[in-house]
Order: sequence, then C-alpha cells, then structure tokens
Amino acid sequence: MNNGYVVAVVGATGAVGREVLSILESRKFPVRELRLLASARSVGRRIDGYTVAAVTDAAFDGCDIAIFDVPDAVSKEWAPRAAARGAVAIDNAGTFRQDPDVPLVIPEINAAAIAHRPRGIIANPNCTTATFIVPIAPLHRAFELKRLFGASYQSVSGAGQPGIDQLWAEVRAVVERGEPLHQPLGTAFPHPIALNVIPSVGSLREGGHTSEEVKALAETRKILGHPTLVVGMTCVRVPTLVSHGVAVHAEFERMPTADEAREVLRGAPGVVVVDDPQANRVPTALTAAGRDPSYVGRIRIDGAGHLAFFAVSDNLRKGAALNTVQIAEALIEAEPGLRNRGTIAGAPR
Amino acid sequence: MNNGYVVAVVGATGAVGREVLSILESRKFPVRELRLLASARSVGRRIDGYTVAAVTDAAFDGCDIAIFDVPDAVSKEWAPRAAARGAVAIDNAGTFRQDPDVPLVIPEINAAAIAHRPRGIIANPNCTTATFIVPIAPLHRAFELKRLFGASYQSVSGAGQPGIDQLWAEVRAVVERGEPLHQPLGTAFPHPIALNVIPSVGSLREGGHTSEEVKALAETRKILGHPTLVVGMTCVRVPTLVSHGVAVHAEFERMPTADEAREVLRGAPGVVVVDDPQANRVPTALTAAGRDPSYVGRIRIDGAGHLAFFAVSDNLRKGAALNTVQIAEALIEAEPGLRNRGTIAGAPR
Repeated sequence: MNNGYVVAVVGATGAVGREVLSILESRKFPVRELRLLASARSVGRRIDGYTVAAVTDAAFDGCDIAIFDVPDAVSKEWAPRAAARGAVAIDNAGTFRQDPDVPLVIPEINAAAIAHRPRGIIANPNCTTATFIVPIAPLHRAFELKRLFGASYQSVSGAGQPGIDQLWAEVRAVVERGEPLHQPLGTAFPHPIALNVIPSVGSLREGGHTSEEVKALAETRKILGHPTLVVGMTCVRVPTLVSHGVAVHAEFERMPTADEAREVLRGAPGVVVVDDPQANRVPTALTAAGRDPSYVGRIRIDGAGHLAFFAVSDNLRKGAALNTVQIAEALIEAEPGLRNRGTIAGAPR
Repeated sequence: MNNGYVVAVVGATGAVGREVLSILESRKFPVRELRLLASARSVGRRIDGYTVAAVTDAAFDGCDIAIFDVPDAVSKEWAPRAAARGAVAIDNAGTFRQDPDVPLVIPEINAAAIAHRPRGIIANPNCTTATFIVPIAPLHRAFELKRLFGASYQSVSGAGQPGIDQLWAEVRAVVERGEPLHQPLGTAFPHPIALNVIPSVGSLREGGHTSEEVKALAETRKILGHPTLVVGMTCVRVPTLVSHGVAVHAEFERMPTADEAREVLRGAPGVVVVDDPQANRVPTALTAAGRDPSYVGRIRIDGAGHLAFFAVSDNLRKGAALNTVQIAEALIEAEPGLRNRGTIAGAPR
C-alpha cells in the first residue's frame, strides 16, 4: 500500500457531505490529504479543522478520488472535469447513473463493475434502490428474480437539510397548536409532512410515475444486470428523520420458502435479519438510523405466493455517504496504485 | 317512514363510539330514542346530554339497532344477546366478520347482503380493508380483479385512544429533546412511533402474517364475493393521527389503461379522485382526515404492468363509525318497518 490517497469531498458542507467526512474518519480510509470543496457561498468555512475551498479545475490537480455530493447540475459539470484532471469521480447525483460508460455500484453486489469506467466516473445509486437491492441481490443470485413490487417509507432527509428543517418546524408547531397543520412550514414538501404521508417523491415523469419510481426500476436493472426485470413501485414520503423503508413483494423463477430466503439473507453481506415479530423484533426506521446495514424482517410468503419482506436502511449512509466510501475502498483494494492511472481522461465515448 | 328508531351505541365513550354519535347527528339519522351503553367504568358519565348506562340484556329491549364499537370479546358476548332481544346488531369488531351467517357490508359495494342475516348481526369491515376496497370494488366490477398487492400506511388511531395518546406524548418529548426517542412512551406500540415506522400491525398469525394482513385478504374476498382472489399485503404503522393509506398494485383479467381506471373511479360512489401530481394534488393522510370518501390518486400502470394507485380514508369514519351508520341507513331504507322483525333471534344455525 502507498502512503495514502488525496481525497476531495465536493459538497462537503451538505448533509451527505458531512456524513462522508465522518465515515472516512471512522472507517480509517487511508487519506494523505483531504480537500473540502463547496460552492462559493461556503468557501472559507472551517469544518473539523479544514478550510472549505472553491470547486475549480486546479482543486482536482493531484487528486486521486473525488466524492461528489452535489445537485445533478453541479455533478454534470464538475465530475467530468475532476476526471479530466486525473481523479476518479464517485458521484452521488442522478446524472450519470444510466450512462453505459459509468458503472453504478454497490460494492456488496457488483464491485467488479468498478474496473470498467471509461469516463473516470463511478455512480452511487439512489437511496431507495440501495435499501431494497442489498437484500434483493443475494436472493436474485439464489432464486432468480422475476418481478418485484415495492412501496417505500422515505424519510425527510432524502430531501436534504430543507426536508429535515421542515419536519422539525412542523413538529414544533403541531405540539404548540395541539393539532395537525393545514399548510406546510417550508418548501421541501408541498404539503405538511408532520403527522402526514405524501404519496409522491421526486418530480413527475411520463406515465404518471415519479422520478424516484423510475430510478428504482432502471437502477435495479442496471446493478443486477437484469434488463428484463419488471418492478412496480410506489414511493411515499413519511415523517421520519432518517432511514428509508421498503415493503417488498417479489416473485422468483424458483420460489424459495420463507426459511430458505431467511437463510440466504442471514449470510448476505450488508444485511442484518431482524425477524421475530412475536417478540416485537421487526426492523423500524429507528433501527437503521445511524447504522450501516440494510435491516430485513417480516420475511414470509404473502397471500399471493410472493416472497415478502420489509427492509430499512439509513438513507444518508448506505443510501449515500457510506456507499460512496465503500466504493472508494473497493477501488483502492482492486487498484492500490490508483494514483495517475485512475482514469482515461478524454477517452473516446 | 315511521317516527324514528331506537338506537343503542355500545362503547359510546370510545374514540369510534363518540364518532358514531356525531355522525348519527350530522347525517340526521331518524333516531327516536338514543341509548348510550358502555362498560361499568363509564356508567353515569354524561355525553351530549345523555347519561351512559350499563350493557345489560334489558338495555336492548325495544331497541331497533345496536351499533357495537367494543373489543372482540365484548362483541362476541353481547352482539348475539342484543339480537336475541330484537335489535339488529351492527358490529365493528373482528369477531363475526368471517361467520357465513353474518354479512360483511360496505353499503356502496354490497348493500344487498344486509337482507340475509340469520344471526341478526351485520359486521363492519376492518379499517384498512375499507380504505382500498371502496375503489377496488368498482374496478373489479369493470375489469375483474385477479391479484392485488398492498402496503399500508396506518395511523395511530387504529389502535384507539392509547395509540393517539402515545403519539402525542412522544411528539412532545422529541420536541423537548430535539431528537428521536429510544423507548416508547406508552403501551399501544412496542417501539416509539414518533419519527418512526413500524412494519407490523396487529398480532402475529400463522405463516408470519399479522392479523391485519390476514383480515385484508379474507375480508376482501368476502365483500367482493371473490373466493379465489389472491392478496399480498404488508401492514405498517406510521406517525399520523387519523387516516389509513394504502399503496395498491392490482392485476385484472382485462387490464384497463390508467385513463379507463380513472374514469371508473370518477363515477364510483364513496370515491373522490385527487390525481394531478404535477400540481401537487395527491391524496395525503391529512386530505382524508375528518372526511367521508376514500381519496384516490397516483393512478397509473406500474413498471410491472399492474394498475397502481394510492388510496387514503379516515379510519375512524369510513373505516369504522361512518360505515356502521351507513349500514344502518341502508337497513332502514330496505326495511323501513324494521321494528320487531329485524332479526330471527335464536334461529337455528
């Protein structure tokens, strides 16, 4: 191993960016030099003894790995520019996830895909997809997934700090008033989210689906390498701070029993089975908050003969920050001499 | 029409019982005499100028209709005894719903079933079933339902006043502490419900299903008269005060387009379509709270080719109190001279 890597975190001041910094430290990622980059507004801010700098081409000079936790438009511009300067860009935005020249990676499932990255960019999946695909992938390997129905229970932090702020402001207001609100106290969600559920996450797409529902289908197909998979998905925002839950009903070519499925899940990387409803052991949103695995419970064969389970994981960690750091770990494990050969910048598409 | 009916409300002091009283009044149900009955603990309490009396056989003498909003064990004992005294018992407990001699009725769907009640008892469905069956029934009539997947978003009032009290106590505590709780502040739910979701509603049954999930299948089959229907269901408790939501993905013998389904739903009794996600018009829990219809939106064909929609209704009203009063209305419309022929008490089973 060399004496560590030069790592840039772009969007270091956001909810996910701060989580990346803490995870790099707690997992002892071999960092030789850490660069915190953000928009002009945040330049000069101090975080953990580091001074936030502006995103410029020069900021990526000599950089091995650049982790992007920024809006789609920013990553669209800057991830390729970081790659052009020699860094491997690990991007948490939606921009490049469906680009055939950008691998979409969950290390427990398809770490090998990292090797083929002609654009020098590796994409991190959407947080809802991450929650259910960590348990679905080993089941797919064992029993061959045919069709999946999912309904999500997504926390407000999926909408970033404004989502968190809106829920807290509203929770304080309902306590003061002693009743639910009629108008939202924030702009993250168009309805009050305290004491409410909103069956729409993301923007509206063709066919009446939301962007979040479209991603669940496209990303699951790409990560599993299963282009004919069909997914019926409903994404719903609920008043939790962190953790996304998904109720899954899945059909396989070879249908397992609940015990066979439980056995596969018990041995699966990144999965923790919490499944003793009689003793009230079920995976709740709070079970996963601040933790790494995807927690899975309520494993059973449903009334329609599908395998059903409930999965929950921390959307800021496995759904975002943790997985990007895990990608970086897989990268340096596969290519310890990453430096100066991390990308083929400008390679023909 | 005669000069009104003698109506008893059993469990008048509970959350649903109080809702029944208010709905009888607001819908101007022709009441000649109202009797409020409850357990010994509540006897003597005054509600809206009425004094609460004890549940005794004599209390049902001369009674036309007795609406029961009590625990299963109480209805098991007293609904037949009320019927034996000549009252038609309308029961909101789970006790008699699967009894072949007890009709299970949602008036918009199967009002005619009321006529055959050899035990003198009519059952009211479970509140989660009510939410999705009101829109599913007209779609089934038009396109023939084959298979249904549902994931619920159930409010704490489904667990009665203790559920409401636990959520309020916890919401106040999280505001005070500025963070989620680790332990529940109440006994209605075994985990904190504020800022959480709990993927388990009711008690555990065979095969790893909860009682709530078993009811959804059995009651949907009975109300639709569709004994071969298959239903895959996950029931989840969320931190809302009232309204149950259900994300539905349904397969039909003749698959409709989203527009065809929307058209059927627009003309369906008890259904209001709220479906313009572009303008943020989606049915939320707060949309339905305190209102009568089942609100339906996000109508679309999902990625697996099923018809998907999100339905939400007030679990204390359509899921309970309102539907029992609607059963009473359907009953006196079909049999205005109900008095003294409402039941065949003691008829052989």
